[in-house]
Amino acid sequence: MAKKDMEKIEGLGIVETKYYNMPDGEEFLLESGLKISTLKIAYETYGELNDDKTNAVLICHSLSGDAHVAGYHQGDKKPGWWDDMIGPGKAFDTDKYFVVCSNVIGGCKGSSGPNSIAPETGKPYGLGFPIVSIKDMVEAQRKLLSFFGIEKLLSVCGGSMGGMQALQWAVSYPDEVLSCIPIATTYKHSAQQIAFDEVGRQAIMTDPTWQGGDYYEKEQPSAGLAVARMIGHITYMSNESMEDKFGRALKKEELGYEFTTEFEVEGYLRYRGDSFVKRFDANSYLYITKAMDYFDLQQDKKLHQAFKGIKTRFLVIAFSSDWLYPPSQSKDLVKAFKMNGIDVTYCEISSDYGHDAFLLEFNEETKLVKHFIEKTYKRVKK
Amino acid sequence: MAKKDMEKIEGLGIVETKYYNMPDGEEFLLESGLKISTLKIAYETYGELNDDKTNAVLICHSLSGDAHVAGYHQGDKKPGWWDDMIGPGKAFDTDKYFVVCSNVIGGCKGSSGPNSIAPETGKPYGLGFPIVSIKDMVEAQRKLLSFFGIEKLLSVCGGSMGGMQALQWAVSYPDEVLSCIPIATTYKHSAQQIAFDEVGRQAIMTDPTWQGGDYYEKEQPSAGLAVARMIGHITYMSNESMEDKFGRALKKEELGYEFTTEFEVEGYLRYRGDSFVKRFDANSYLYITKAMDYFDLQQDKKLHQAFKGIKTRFLVIAFSSDWLYPPSQSKDLVKAFKMNGIDVTYCEISSDYGHDAFLLEFNEETKLVKHFIEKTYKRVKK
Repeated sequence: MAKKDMEKIEGLGIVETKYYNMPDGEEFLLESGLKISTLKIAYETYGELNDDKTNAVLICHSLSGDAHVAGYHQGDKKPGWWDDMIGPGKAFDTDKYFVVCSNVIGGCKGSSGPNSIAPETGKPYGLGFPIVSIKDMVEAQRKLLSFFGIEKLLSVCGGSMGGMQALQWAVSYPDEVLSCIPIATTYKHSAQQIAFDEVGRQAIMTDPTWQGGDYYEKEQPSAGLAVARMIGHITYMSNESMEDKFGRALKKEELGYEFTTEFEVEGYLRYRGDSFVKRFDANSYLYITKAMDYFDLQQDKKLHQAFKGIKTRFLVIAFSSDWLYPPSQSKDLVKAFKMNGIDVTYCEISSDYGHDAFLLEFNEETKLVKHFIEKTYKRVKK
Repeated sequence: MAKKDMEKIEGLGIVETKYYNMPDGEEFLLESGLKISTLKIAYETYGELNDDKTNAVLICHSLSGDAHVAGYHQGDKKPGWWDDMIGPGKAFDTDKYFVVCSNVIGGCKGSSGPNSIAPETGKPYGLGFPIVSIKDMVEAQRKLLSFFGIEKLLSVCGGSMGGMQALQWAVSYPDEVLSCIPIATTYKHSAQQIAFDEVGRQAIMTDPTWQGGDYYEKEQPSAGLAVARMIGHITYMSNESMEDKFGRALKKEELGYEFTTEFEVEGYLRYRGDSFVKRFDANSYLYITKAMDYFDLQQDKKLHQAFKGIKTRFLVIAFSSDWLYPPSQSKDLVKAFKMNGIDVTYCEISSDYGHDAFLLEFNEETKLVKHFIEKTYKRVKK
């Protein structure tokens, strides 16, 4: 590799999260009919917005993600959650595109959410924060883009819940989205997907420290949130990847005949649960899972009717071993697009990583995404 | 249908649970090396043991089952948990066979378990009860059978954890088991199966009312146990059956934008969780899931080596949509049997009911089981 290329893929270096505040006096109307009077959006941007503002790409994050998708925060050893995909020369090439990622509303990483201060009380909202939907998350992102003067997105992309937002963008604003890349996602939450979320919520809400969501001055319901996260982790991994990674390996030399952590897989889950509670707010877990459960582009229609009149180009990516958002749901989506004559490319990447694959199979994703966006961008510049 | 047949399938009528107590002074040795000094086994029997004691069939129950597998308890509106399969003229024909079912040790339905009184303290064992294994459950059943003077089983059958016991019987006592019917089960718990159990245990053990297992004089950790059961229920149903039964149906007319039970599937799970805590002991949930997690007939060997020298005939049944104990695990088992020249019949029943199918697809199971046992019994009588 030439030295110039080496430098190119070295990444974005130090980046920082910024904040957009909706102007005083304005109110942010939600799908429920309720309003937020002081909307704040945490975001990061990489690359330069071109003069005609045609090179903007929006990345949408999943349940536990945030605005920090790439580059390093000062002092951090780990980069953003999708750094492999975003930067100079990467799939989302910041030498060419202006990449935006913002924390969803209802979240806990800087955007308005249940841990924000309610102006009425001067205390954290808790459950006083209104329920938000995927559509509301998209509306908040649109506010931010309009602050940049961006009227059209070259592309919107996301995995898991990020894919739901990407799809919602194309449905809500078909004329403002040139291309859309939903990855490892679905067009509506199924009964099983709702069920897993509900059990996680129950684990949180039955933790006595949850206190109806009013725990910010004390401690957060760590035990409940850890259990919720552990359930989540099982659904993110495939049976195969768990078997490969852990099998029945023991932490000690032999069975202990006790209820401590004996199997490697138990230790891993407890570790993931415990580390999650240090960086995530339990109420946000409730709000975000609820938003996903509400997500239903199909409603009572036939699925293809949901995508009437859309001109957006699509690249739909699914992973063979993803049983949380299985390829069958992506295929339904692709079929519905085709029935509308929509330009769609579908790729099922063969992977043992389960749902987590969208964060791990970046080599395969890069091949697909890079070419797809370049092709879209060429059309814009014509 | 002729009147005689009608009477025949009317079932067992009123039955009752009985109790076997190990003679004073004897001790029951466990796989861990620990002992139980006052072993008690709750059991039910149906039909008559023949003079040469060659018509005994042992039914083994799953996680939440008990000794009451068929017939009605006085005053009950519902029969035992597998009444469709056991009774005059049914798959396990009580006109021909002597059917025995006992509650596993570690359980909470009458056999020795964490809620039993420890003779040393006069109080419930709690976590003072020693950890038990599937092998220990089988040893306890063997004690009971020996009390009846039964030296050979015509058949041993069970679904889910019951299937593990059935397999363990054939491995531990190949000369005492003429036929074995493992249904919807596995030869070892996989990392994913351990993971689901561990999250359930964490939900219980992090419930503050659990109190290290010492809650019997207060209240049991209902919230944690309910969450554990909800997780279980998701794994017992298939994606398809959840979608068919609930889809995205709402309990009310429209979305409420609140954290109450909104979707039918949420209401169902909460109901199943809440009703379970009324009939099951949280500590037993810990002990029994741990026994399943320890279950590993393969150990460090090749699987077929685990079944060397077995002469038992097998009927292995799996269900197409069972993702908790998927057909692939049953197929591995069948392959290992065949490598040992063991007489085995395999049937994958096509069903949308997921793991629960072993309790629901009794028509299909009856066809397979009835013929299989009759054939085995004919050989005995020759």
